[in-house]
Amino acid sequence: MTDASDVNIRFPSGTDDPLSDAEIQQYREEINRLDQVILDAIKQRTAISQAIGKIRTSAGGTKLVYTREVAIINQFREELGPEGPALAQILLRMGRGRLG
Amino acid sequence: MTDASDVNIRFPSGTDDPLSDAEIQQYREEINRLDQVILDAIKQRTAISQAIGKIRTSAGGTKLVYTREVAIINQFREELGPEGPALAQILLRMGRGRLG
Repeated sequence: MTDASDVNIRFPSGTDDPLSDAEIQQYREEINRLDQVILDAIKQRTAISQAIGKIRTSAGGTKLVYTREVAIINQFREELGPEGPALAQILLRMGRGRLG
Repeated sequence: MTDASDVNIRFPSGTDDPLSDAEIQQYREEINRLDQVILDAIKQRTAISQAIGKIRTSAGGTKLVYTREVAIINQFREELGPEGPALAQILLRMGRGRLG
C-alpha cells in the first residue's frame, strides 16, 4: 500500500508547469485511499463506542459521558478548525446508536 | 502501535460478567487512537484536495467536479449509513477551502 508521504504534492504558481491530468489522477487515487482509511476507522470507532454504551447501560449507568464528548469535540476543533465540531458530533451520534 | 483487531470487544448480556472500568478504559484508549487516525487522514485528504483545486483553477478549470463529489457522498452513505452523506459533505467542504 502506498503511504501518503510517498505522494509528492506540488502547488503550481502561474509560472510553474501546469500539472498534468495524470498527476491529478494520482492525487485523486490518494484521496480515495485516505477516504477508505477514514471510513474503516469510523466503522471501528462506532462499534467500540456502541459496545461501551451497552456496558454502561447494562451496569445501570447512563450511555453518555458529557465531559468526554466535550473533550472530543474540542480536539476535533483544535485539529481541523471550524468544521471539526460538526464532524465530531456526527461521530459521537453514530457511537451512541439508538438511544434508550 | 496496537492494531484495532487486537482489541477484543465483548457485548455483555444480563447474565455475563459486567465489564470492568479497566475494560471500558481500554476501549476508550482504542477510540482515542482511532480518532487520531481519522484526524490525520482528514488533514492529509484536505491538503491534497485543496492542491487539486488550485491545479484546476490555475488551468482555467472549475474547482469542483460534481460527479466526483456525488460518488464520494454515495460511498459514505453505503459504508456508514444515514450519517454518511453529512460527513462526506464536511470533508468535501474542507477540501474546497475558500472558493474563488
